[in-house]
Amino acid sequence: MRTTTGWQSLDPNSNVLTRVTIERRDLRPDDIAVRIDYCGVCHSDLHRIHGMLGEKDLVPGHEATGVVIATGPAVTGFAVGERVAIGTIIDSCGECAMCEAGQENYCYNQATPTYGGTDRVDGTPTKGAYSREYVLREKFAFHLPDGLTPAAAAPLLCAGVSVWEPLRAAGVGPGSRVAVAGLGGLGHLAVKLASALGSEVTVLSRSAAKEPDALSLGAAGLLVTTDEARTAAAQGRFDLILDTIPADHELTPLIGMLGLDGTLCVLGNPLLAGPKLWELGAGRKKLTSSGTGGLRQTIEMLGFCAAHGIAADVEILPSSEIETALNRLADSDVRYRFVLDMSDLDA
Amino acid sequence: MRTTTGWQSLDPNSNVLTRVTIERRDLRPDDIAVRIDYCGVCHSDLHRIHGMLGEKDLVPGHEATGVVIATGPAVTGFAVGERVAIGTIIDSCGECAMCEAGQENYCYNQATPTYGGTDRVDGTPTKGAYSREYVLREKFAFHLPDGLTPAAAAPLLCAGVSVWEPLRAAGVGPGSRVAVAGLGGLGHLAVKLASALGSEVTVLSRSAAKEPDALSLGAAGLLVTTDEARTAAAQGRFDLILDTIPADHELTPLIGMLGLDGTLCVLGNPLLAGPKLWELGAGRKKLTSSGTGGLRQTIEMLGFCAAHGIAADVEILPSSEIETALNRLADSDVRYRFVLDMSDLDA
Repeated sequence: MRTTTGWQSLDPNSNVLTRVTIERRDLRPDDIAVRIDYCGVCHSDLHRIHGMLGEKDLVPGHEATGVVIATGPAVTGFAVGERVAIGTIIDSCGECAMCEAGQENYCYNQATPTYGGTDRVDGTPTKGAYSREYVLREKFAFHLPDGLTPAAAAPLLCAGVSVWEPLRAAGVGPGSRVAVAGLGGLGHLAVKLASALGSEVTVLSRSAAKEPDALSLGAAGLLVTTDEARTAAAQGRFDLILDTIPADHELTPLIGMLGLDGTLCVLGNPLLAGPKLWELGAGRKKLTSSGTGGLRQTIEMLGFCAAHGIAADVEILPSSEIETALNRLADSDVRYRFVLDMSDLDA
Repeated sequence: MRTTTGWQSLDPNSNVLTRVTIERRDLRPDDIAVRIDYCGVCHSDLHRIHGMLGEKDLVPGHEATGVVIATGPAVTGFAVGERVAIGTIIDSCGECAMCEAGQENYCYNQATPTYGGTDRVDGTPTKGAYSREYVLREKFAFHLPDGLTPAAAAPLLCAGVSVWEPLRAAGVGPGSRVAVAGLGGLGHLAVKLASALGSEVTVLSRSAAKEPDALSLGAAGLLVTTDEARTAAAQGRFDLILDTIPADHELTPLIGMLGLDGTLCVLGNPLLAGPKLWELGAGRKKLTSSGTGGLRQTIEMLGFCAAHGIAADVEILPSSEIETALNRLADSDVRYRFVLDMSDLDA
């Protein structure tokens, strides 16, 4: 066994995490060991710490970048010293239709999550990247392209690919009219990516004060959703709305802003219930959702980001300040993603 | 005023309709008058007679075929004696984005339904095609192509285009895997049309006894949805499921049979509520619905049906037997669409 240190949630009613020693497995033939330098703080970390999925004693973290520090004997794709990134899943069956389609995130036999899951070989619980070292199969690790800085790239591994896949699935490009509801970790990356794909992007927000930020991220404008006249005037205006709002909210006003054959993709709150079907029927509108990304599209997204100079806007904190990050994230007080610097775990 | 006779619902708790005299307007310049020979009995007629939309005293009927018997002075597209068809809407604003897209059925200013609506010019209630004569703008009437028989073609005007549009919106063609849930008026036409478009069609039904019919309509097979093992084995199997089941039912098993980026289009029961979003998220599945069709696609569908020898399988009854038709329709005892022969209204 290898040992490292990390941050574990031992109380589901608290944002205080405890520094613990973590065991990592000895390398299997196709494993690499990664020194984690940075890990993003995802809204789902907050939800899961507080028991949304009924888990306990989590070591969270699934948006990590670092450096390869050891390789198993069968590893061919990575060498010690190379830059590497880790996302939300670290294994899958490899045989089902979803795995064959490169959508291991939807593996019919349950992809193994980076934390809160069970290792497919030895049955041990997976512990996440709020830690200094991680061990995983090389197949599920990503090369971090040149030009991406490790801290700002970390959130691409969940937030980034979570908005990339629905943008690509909807065929977004020049001429597309895209709206992004909610301007947080996912939302700000959605604006950057949709804009870089050539579409016209509108941010939907309750607050007009976010307009300068929206424009600087690449949006063509901001629509204040509490302004009923402007919302009504936006009837049929968008081909795709990416809804990244984590709180409860009504979908009906968003559906009203979709054009013919338009799509509302709900990413921020998968526990929301869909509307009655007739709401979608008036204009053949589509309601969908998705979850993170598969290997193929994650690689594609990282390459696109490197080519277009896109990364997250981040606020970097020492990992020991995770409680502050979680508290402020719960208050939506972050522009736009906290990233933990794991180097303090060496001390 | 012109007068004709028809069948009116005067008691929302009954399937008995009353023979009444109906006034039709004198022809406006762009109007045509139609002698209605046949009118299909749509499941929505049954729902609306019983107050689903809060209406009363309806003269139902919106799947009609007949012959032009008079034309207004500005009519250019129809001549007396020509075969004609009437569908679910008879007017729209003509100026909104939906009308400009040829989807007058989704007119932002409310398309005028063939019955149960309000005429845009004189404010009178629209009365449907369970009658011997109808008057409408020529723009909203359709030429009935050669090769389509008037009785079997009538149901194409609602049931046919209602399944045609979602098939076309989903890009169904060779290689597509389409399922049709429910084998009634809409379902049997969905099987015929999807099959003629080159896709592989599976009927989803609780009853294995429908398999011979499914195959004869063009399906490649039937999946018995009460067989949990077979349903589980169909995980991810379909690109598009057209759900034509009019009763309450669970959407979750249907969603489970969708492949990556697959679409569940609910047509039979628009009052159903959508599932929680996470059900759609596992595989980026789309939930949608739609309602009848626009002028452009109705014309396209009629041409496709004429070219491929497709029409509804109908049971023709004299219009005086409408109560029998409604009773049997409520019991799903029809293969597959009742069509009323209106000639008995001359007696």
